[in-house]
Amino acid sequence: MSSECPVPIREREVILIGHGSGGRMTSELLERVVVPALSNPTLDALDDAALLHLPSGERIAFTTDSYVVSPIFFPGGDIGDLAVNCTINDLAVSGARPIALSLAFILEEGFPIEDFRRVVASVKRAADRARVSVVTGDTKVVGHGSGDGVFVNTSGVGVVPDGLALGSAQVRPGDAVIVSGTIGDHGVAILAHRQGLAIRGDLRSDTAPLHELTRAMLEISPRIHAMRDPTRGGLAATLVEIATRRKLGVEVFESALPVRDEVRGACEILGLDPAMVANEGKLVAFIPEEDAGVVLEAMRAHPLGKDAACIGRVTDEHAGMVVVRTPFGSTRVLDLPLTEPLPRIC
Amino acid sequence: MSSECPVPIREREVILIGHGSGGRMTSELLERVVVPALSNPTLDALDDAALLHLPSGERIAFTTDSYVVSPIFFPGGDIGDLAVNCTINDLAVSGARPIALSLAFILEEGFPIEDFRRVVASVKRAADRARVSVVTGDTKVVGHGSGDGVFVNTSGVGVVPDGLALGSAQVRPGDAVIVSGTIGDHGVAILAHRQGLAIRGDLRSDTAPLHELTRAMLEISPRIHAMRDPTRGGLAATLVEIATRRKLGVEVFESALPVRDEVRGACEILGLDPAMVANEGKLVAFIPEEDAGVVLEAMRAHPLGKDAACIGRVTDEHAGMVVVRTPFGSTRVLDLPLTEPLPRIC
Repeated sequence: MSSECPVPIREREVILIGHGSGGRMTSELLERVVVPALSNPTLDALDDAALLHLPSGERIAFTTDSYVVSPIFFPGGDIGDLAVNCTINDLAVSGARPIALSLAFILEEGFPIEDFRRVVASVKRAADRARVSVVTGDTKVVGHGSGDGVFVNTSGVGVVPDGLALGSAQVRPGDAVIVSGTIGDHGVAILAHRQGLAIRGDLRSDTAPLHELTRAMLEISPRIHAMRDPTRGGLAATLVEIATRRKLGVEVFESALPVRDEVRGACEILGLDPAMVANEGKLVAFIPEEDAGVVLEAMRAHPLGKDAACIGRVTDEHAGMVVVRTPFGSTRVLDLPLTEPLPRIC
Repeated sequence: MSSECPVPIREREVILIGHGSGGRMTSELLERVVVPALSNPTLDALDDAALLHLPSGERIAFTTDSYVVSPIFFPGGDIGDLAVNCTINDLAVSGARPIALSLAFILEEGFPIEDFRRVVASVKRAADRARVSVVTGDTKVVGHGSGDGVFVNTSGVGVVPDGLALGSAQVRPGDAVIVSGTIGDHGVAILAHRQGLAIRGDLRSDTAPLHELTRAMLEISPRIHAMRDPTRGGLAATLVEIATRRKLGVEVFESALPVRDEVRGACEILGLDPAMVANEGKLVAFIPEEDAGVVLEAMRAHPLGKDAACIGRVTDEHAGMVVVRTPFGSTRVLDLPLTEPLPRIC
């Protein structure tokens, strides 16, 4: 992918806002600067959480994310529950049972302490909902103009049950591709709120913890090959990354993509593709064909999976590409935008 | 302690730079806003790393810190090796063997990519030196004026060997208090560099990984009661916290404090007490009196412990207070400053 990027890093020289978009500029920055320097098999897997083997034979999942979402409070959530839920989800899609979270704040001088209390209370509610404790933390302060209210980092540790072996490396041709619900809700809610867009209906973030949904899925089918958390860059980024890294094809049926009417409408106004917009309470699963039916059924029985849908399949054709079949019988290639118009979406 | 703070939070209403100092304002913010909301026994221990019990019976240590040090590059190190070393040290002083690190960047638009490469390379060198891998990461970007070049978060996971039970809760009257070397080096180096202070001699950060030193100490005496990493707020913050939380007294012999001449000189010019200035490659240990001699000997045999010194002892007198005995026979109470003139020291 990086070789296709028309703007090489050496000509840009500085970090641009698009490097944080989850689009091709993000991939390129990571592939050129970070991954080569720090390369090791666990990091290179670039799954949502790293799998660690302990001396006892026990396996744990370990993940980190920083949150810079703007605004801090938005319809459906805030930076506090967003951080907790997203870290829970990174563990959950790795097959892990979350056991502990860390919480680190970077506060800007002048940030109202009342807002800080609100964020901490939101972290607490989200952690309680997921039955996980915040066990360690840190608080730093920077001067006015060197931060933006509050940035949050949450890292998480989870225990991976014996017998599970999820990961992008397990994805195979023939796998069914399933999403757990409607796509684009989080990113569109943030952007509409930021732009003051008045849209009929309810545009709110889908931020939610998915560990109970994934547990139900894995109880029905411990053979699930991989699950991913389609946040920045949306469903498209997740599918393109799997196709590119695994040199497999992915075929998506456009008419099968679950998109809420309000989100579709807002995307038309904003000029966005819902498949390229961040989700914060959805997962994408790659499932052996023969198990897809029972897993889908189990997902739909859970409130956070009620709109789950099989949206496509993995193929050994058009390796490295995600091809979308439209309802009119035509096809188009789904690629990442160089950047996307959604900075600081999470 | 919080009840002694002369400026209650409700009258300040917003985050002030002093809330990040590691002084009394930091304690007060945590004790009033964060700890009550998120309280649980593991978090409340407020040790440098949290101890987690896994289903297998294995114990792991888990820690997090964000780094906002300014400038990013300073004599003796940069934000990259500082982050790695400090996280290694939080694990090491918990008795853990570090096994994996996470790495999350918040980059500001306009930050030179060449500087980003330097920081990543520095992370790599420090991780290699400590024989630990960065296994998972994250990169976010914020607009110009919403960050300051680069902020780093590193979290770490380590394995705690059977038989060890370190923690502030283990500290007992009679314990010897030992520091592993000269104090104040990091904070004074940063401040002198920031102020363009020309001081004869070599002022540089002491940033270094202490996991081999702690291993040597624990091999000699698995009965060590507690170890701490005296970063923000320096030796004073660490001792005052132990005294206050454990309702014990600590007696410090001023003449025993190892301080480099350059650091002492710079502190005099800058009006600082070396005991209140951050260290990034030192530890404080609380050791049963009968083991103190052999541990000190083992520490001095290690390059990072060659200046180790016994600086005092834990008492059951003057509970909650740290008392310094001067060479002239007088005593003074060591307390935290409300804030300290050292924002963004790590």
